[in-house]
Amino acid sequence: MTLEEKIGQMTNITIGMVATEVGDSLVIDKDKLRNVMLSHKVGSFQNVIGHAYSLQNWHNMLDEIQAINMKESRLKIPLLYAIDAVHGADYTLGSTIFPHNLGLAATRNTYLAKLGAQITAKEVRASGIRYNFSPVLDAGRQPLWPRLAETFGEDINLVKKMGVAEIEGYEGNDLKSIDHVAACMKHFIGYSLPTSGKDRSSALIPDVTLREFFLPSFAAAVKAGTHTVMVNSAEVNGIPVHANKYLLTNVLRGELGFKGVVISDWEDVKKLAERHRVASSYKEAVYQSVDAGIDLCIVPSDLDFSKYLIELVREKRIPIARINESVRRVLQLKYDLGLFDNPYVEKEAAKNFGRPEYQNVALDAARESITLLKNDKNVLPLAKDKKIFITGPGAKSLSTLNGAWTYSWQGTNAQFFSKNQLTITQAIQQKAKNTSYALGTNFKGGDEEIALAVEAAKDADEIVVCLGEDAYAETPGNIEDLDLPDNQLKLVTELSKLNKPIIAVFTEGRPRIIRKIEPLLSGIILAYWPGEQGANAIADVLFGDYNPSGKLPITYPKYPNSLVTYDHKYLDEVFESASPQIYSEEFHPQFSFGFGLSYTTFKYSPITFSADKLTSKGSIEVKVTVTNTGKMAGKEAVEMYSSDLIASITPSVRRLRDFTKIYLASGESKEVTFKLSAKDLAFIGKDLKWRTEPGDFDITIGNQKKRLVYVAQ
Amino acid sequence: MTLEEKIGQMTNITIGMVATEVGDSLVIDKDKLRNVMLSHKVGSFQNVIGHAYSLQNWHNMLDEIQAINMKESRLKIPLLYAIDAVHGADYTLGSTIFPHNLGLAATRNTYLAKLGAQITAKEVRASGIRYNFSPVLDAGRQPLWPRLAETFGEDINLVKKMGVAEIEGYEGNDLKSIDHVAACMKHFIGYSLPTSGKDRSSALIPDVTLREFFLPSFAAAVKAGTHTVMVNSAEVNGIPVHANKYLLTNVLRGELGFKGVVISDWEDVKKLAERHRVASSYKEAVYQSVDAGIDLCIVPSDLDFSKYLIELVREKRIPIARINESVRRVLQLKYDLGLFDNPYVEKEAAKNFGRPEYQNVALDAARESITLLKNDKNVLPLAKDKKIFITGPGAKSLSTLNGAWTYSWQGTNAQFFSKNQLTITQAIQQKAKNTSYALGTNFKGGDEEIALAVEAAKDADEIVVCLGEDAYAETPGNIEDLDLPDNQLKLVTELSKLNKPIIAVFTEGRPRIIRKIEPLLSGIILAYWPGEQGANAIADVLFGDYNPSGKLPITYPKYPNSLVTYDHKYLDEVFESASPQIYSEEFHPQFSFGFGLSYTTFKYSPITFSADKLTSKGSIEVKVTVTNTGKMAGKEAVEMYSSDLIASITPSVRRLRDFTKIYLASGESKEVTFKLSAKDLAFIGKDLKWRTEPGDFDITIGNQKKRLVYVAQ
Repeated sequence: MTLEEKIGQMTNITIGMVATEVGDSLVIDKDKLRNVMLSHKVGSFQNVIGHAYSLQNWHNMLDEIQAINMKESRLKIPLLYAIDAVHGADYTLGSTIFPHNLGLAATRNTYLAKLGAQITAKEVRASGIRYNFSPVLDAGRQPLWPRLAETFGEDINLVKKMGVAEIEGYEGNDLKSIDHVAACMKHFIGYSLPTSGKDRSSALIPDVTLREFFLPSFAAAVKAGTHTVMVNSAEVNGIPVHANKYLLTNVLRGELGFKGVVISDWEDVKKLAERHRVASSYKEAVYQSVDAGIDLCIVPSDLDFSKYLIELVREKRIPIARINESVRRVLQLKYDLGLFDNPYVEKEAAKNFGRPEYQNVALDAARESITLLKNDKNVLPLAKDKKIFITGPGAKSLSTLNGAWTYSWQGTNAQFFSKNQLTITQAIQQKAKNTSYALGTNFKGGDEEIALAVEAAKDADEIVVCLGEDAYAETPGNIEDLDLPDNQLKLVTELSKLNKPIIAVFTEGRPRIIRKIEPLLSGIILAYWPGEQGANAIADVLFGDYNPSGKLPITYPKYPNSLVTYDHKYLDEVFESASPQIYSEEFHPQFSFGFGLSYTTFKYSPITFSADKLTSKGSIEVKVTVTNTGKMAGKEAVEMYSSDLIASITPSVRRLRDFTKIYLASGESKEVTFKLSAKDLAFIGKDLKWRTEPGDFDITIGNQKKRLVYVAQ
Repeated sequence: MTLEEKIGQMTNITIGMVATEVGDSLVIDKDKLRNVMLSHKVGSFQNVIGHAYSLQNWHNMLDEIQAINMKESRLKIPLLYAIDAVHGADYTLGSTIFPHNLGLAATRNTYLAKLGAQITAKEVRASGIRYNFSPVLDAGRQPLWPRLAETFGEDINLVKKMGVAEIEGYEGNDLKSIDHVAACMKHFIGYSLPTSGKDRSSALIPDVTLREFFLPSFAAAVKAGTHTVMVNSAEVNGIPVHANKYLLTNVLRGELGFKGVVISDWEDVKKLAERHRVASSYKEAVYQSVDAGIDLCIVPSDLDFSKYLIELVREKRIPIARINESVRRVLQLKYDLGLFDNPYVEKEAAKNFGRPEYQNVALDAARESITLLKNDKNVLPLAKDKKIFITGPGAKSLSTLNGAWTYSWQGTNAQFFSKNQLTITQAIQQKAKNTSYALGTNFKGGDEEIALAVEAAKDADEIVVCLGEDAYAETPGNIEDLDLPDNQLKLVTELSKLNKPIIAVFTEGRPRIIRKIEPLLSGIILAYWPGEQGANAIADVLFGDYNPSGKLPITYPKYPNSLVTYDHKYLDEVFESASPQIYSEEFHPQFSFGFGLSYTTFKYSPITFSADKLTSKGSIEVKVTVTNTGKMAGKEAVEMYSSDLIASITPSVRRLRDFTKIYLASGESKEVTFKLSAKDLAFIGKDLKWRTEPGDFDITIGNQKKRLVYVAQ
């Protein structure tokens, strides 16, 4: 390979550089394509121009590109195409749209996460694409961050287990299979804790925190064999991660043993000069990022990356050995994906696309994600013969169900949504005939129609108000106030004057604060961004056709300036407030991590341990029996927490260590067994290494607690 | 000395252990005193029981304690007494109460800060006390923190210069002088950036940030010879600072070369076990803190610290050499303070107490601190013959002027305030006879009286509404929402319906958010907590008897979830908001750091440099001429900022490097010269050491900017 050919393999370009949209379809501009792919040897492409395309359009376009490449290029190395399919094959029209990861995390059901990822993999591969930029493995510890919905929530063990399940679903055991695609662990590392909450802004994360609360999901994913990783666009502690050799090389390759491809995020190499200001020029930025450990750069809109990298090698600033390493990894990925066997769209994969049974999985996932947060006087489930008034900005919106990355980046381009998808209003009307509707207010604000809604609600028995956030993705989703917007608060306040039961359904990508209206609500359902089957799932829960089992994957805050995760320090517990002067023993969120109601009741037996003490050599079994003591069958997420009573780094008040999801018929009991070893209780010490210190731990499952002694022998 | 005697010198007890209050006076319980001081050898005391005492009461009490000590103890080592005199001798009745540090920082006048500290030192020493727990050197970079008012704001160079000025005022050149007291740098280190904003809660501060934005004020204060330092009560990165040997020994003593006394904060050794959970017992906590580097422990309410430390020495876990070090430092402090020359109250110091001219300094400081933030259509200054309506919770409150630590911890016990102190209403009435008043609303909430206030305002020409926060100190000042409370917002909203000019006067310890009412206000005056002369100063500014010159020492935020300091990274600049979709080139606070209006106008000439280039060896002079182009004489804070265009740690968009305060008569010009050397442009690099990298810097003064080239030669 020539130097230019090698560096072409390290270069990734957006399809927008070589194609245009004609109508709703993508059409290749062959002159531009030949320039990029043949003259400049570019080895991979990605993304869409403005929105999703049909399966046929993808097939035509990808085969057309590949054919020119295979016929006209010197080496005939197959092109690799990549896409963001983060909750379904969301850039192919007619695909199956699942809940976003935050909702999946609420299910506590790793099986469902894996099943959904398997379907996504099939539909992406059926589209002719073999590389998926998913899943997000960033722990969602900053509720303002507009990508929170793409995370599995604030707990790193939850992120780890759900993330690995998705990766197993995407990758399977053989990337050559038409059932699988390469996954991408993203975004390495520290992206999800921006200080101000804004996307792609600066973060301050001490090493001990980075390793305790952010690194484990990536470590587990590397161990699971994930083929690629994408780098954090932002900067941590004043060092842009795209220029952080310590993290990208020492930690990722050295400590974690990652062998796959490190890919940049969108235009982030150039931004080392333009935004972060650590590089004096684009060329210097290329030097810094390749030196740090980037294998493949999503340039994506110019050809200067290649030009500068060629210069840097010729000037001997970047050794050719460093280039060879990256090229070898990219070629290995292409080989693993079977591109050298068949570089074209695998036509036999088309049978894997859009199968009706996939919608059942999407419905199951949406149902299990739904988290019942309040149910005063058992106002829920609703009777189907009552007069129900539906209102609010979410009531007739599909985009608030689908959220980000649904057939377009921002998810707000409704013309591409499935014609079969129901709004919440439609789904309710399918179950309860006696319903009425008024807008109330919009996501964009305005209170002109609130009075009309109050008037229209006067005859109703119950009011369902659909609130939250419309779809958004990345920086356009930045906000400066976590409070639910005033117009939505006002809608509830005005409706409450009718003294009727109000049930709020929240579809939102992050926990918008509802302190001022919560007392006015009899029932609260949190549905996250539940995807294409979201409205059906919500209606099923509202009317008792499904028993909710979601548990919060985040702390739902009560105040905009008290954003504290559940696994905070003991020091953060005692809260003393000035006005009025209260001393509380708890930090007080609106709803705690792990909270979620059911229509039935579960009883937990006392916890038993299989041995008196845990030692460093063995493990113990922690058992509890859960009984459904109510009248309705239901699922229960059983969670095991530990509390380290004393440690050399101040311990968290509690930490989720393991969880499982069980189904119990009315009256049924099941024994749940968790295995616990010293490493499950470990924390990052002052030396930045994992350690478990001898001493006492409280183990909590449900409402049961038992003291465990760990001895280092 | 016996071991017990040595450890007694390391022990500090609250006066509440050995005294009671009888009426308003403190009375020693001699049995308790003898037990603590003679049987347990305790060598120092501090604080008050509930509030300030008279000069005479202090004298009697301190001499009584010292007499028993000097007559009955074996070694006759004088006792040391310490107090929190953080904005005046605030625990002696009749002392002079200055603005809190945040207001002093707004003056940008180091001379005033030093003068105030000199007076405080005299009044504290005149009270018989020689050790003052002041100043706070923590950079105030978390606006929620309830001790923000005690800081000099968010910029570390501002903190450094103002802090050193206060220390020079407190300590002078000779601690034996009756004009001076020992100062205390507090709180070492990282106290002021709690993640959730709550006092004494956990912080995450990477080393690079700790050294760039928090350590320099302490380093400068050590260089200035400060005799003592108090330790941060909280934990940084999971390590309580009271148990952090690296920070207290390696950094503070090793790198900074500190030779003085390291004192714990209130009960914080015990809390290593009780709250932080890094120690399994109180005894273990004593071990950790003394091993880390504590010399003197504010126990303050039990005698177990001594007991456990004696045990630890006998068990050889703490070497006697370590004890000797600390005792030597404590004895040296007592020696330096002249206690071995005269341990009793220095009666001749009484002449230094409560002199009338001190009030002029307090008034000057309050006047210069006042920051005019809005003056639409020159609504200010007000004409004295207009009908002025005064309302709001601050209008008749003295505690909102004085703030925390004013004759009591919380500052809300009004019975001890000076009888001569005026409220804002009284001070306005002294200048403008045609005034009326209504309460409007309270600091504690309630909107019942708002309608009455609106009714009463109907005849007025102008409305002055006094808003903000009542006094609070430390944890009771914790809040969870930075927004100004709803009742205060409502008061302004309702008043605005009268379509009269509204001038808001804010007295507050931190920037409560006013976004929703700011457009309704014609004038905005921020007075911080201005102290005893606050109302006079406010009235002077309102009516043009004083021309305001305060500049914000903090970024005044516009939104609760967008708390970004002015010296943020370039990455934090471009803000893209979802709804409505806007792309802004600026992060947008309500008011920027350094902002503040005047009744006159100042013109800045182009900047000149004394040399073409700055080199590592020399320095250059940066000159600018400022002209008062308006009709009123006034002061101007002239500030020099630098912007590093490229650096290996992402640079801040700008950094304050130096400032001075000048007075200009109408039409007058003055040339201002700043000296600039490479170290002024330095930043903490990846190796955690200071470095200045060759390249371009933009130097900004006022509205002038000039490019500076730095070459490393």
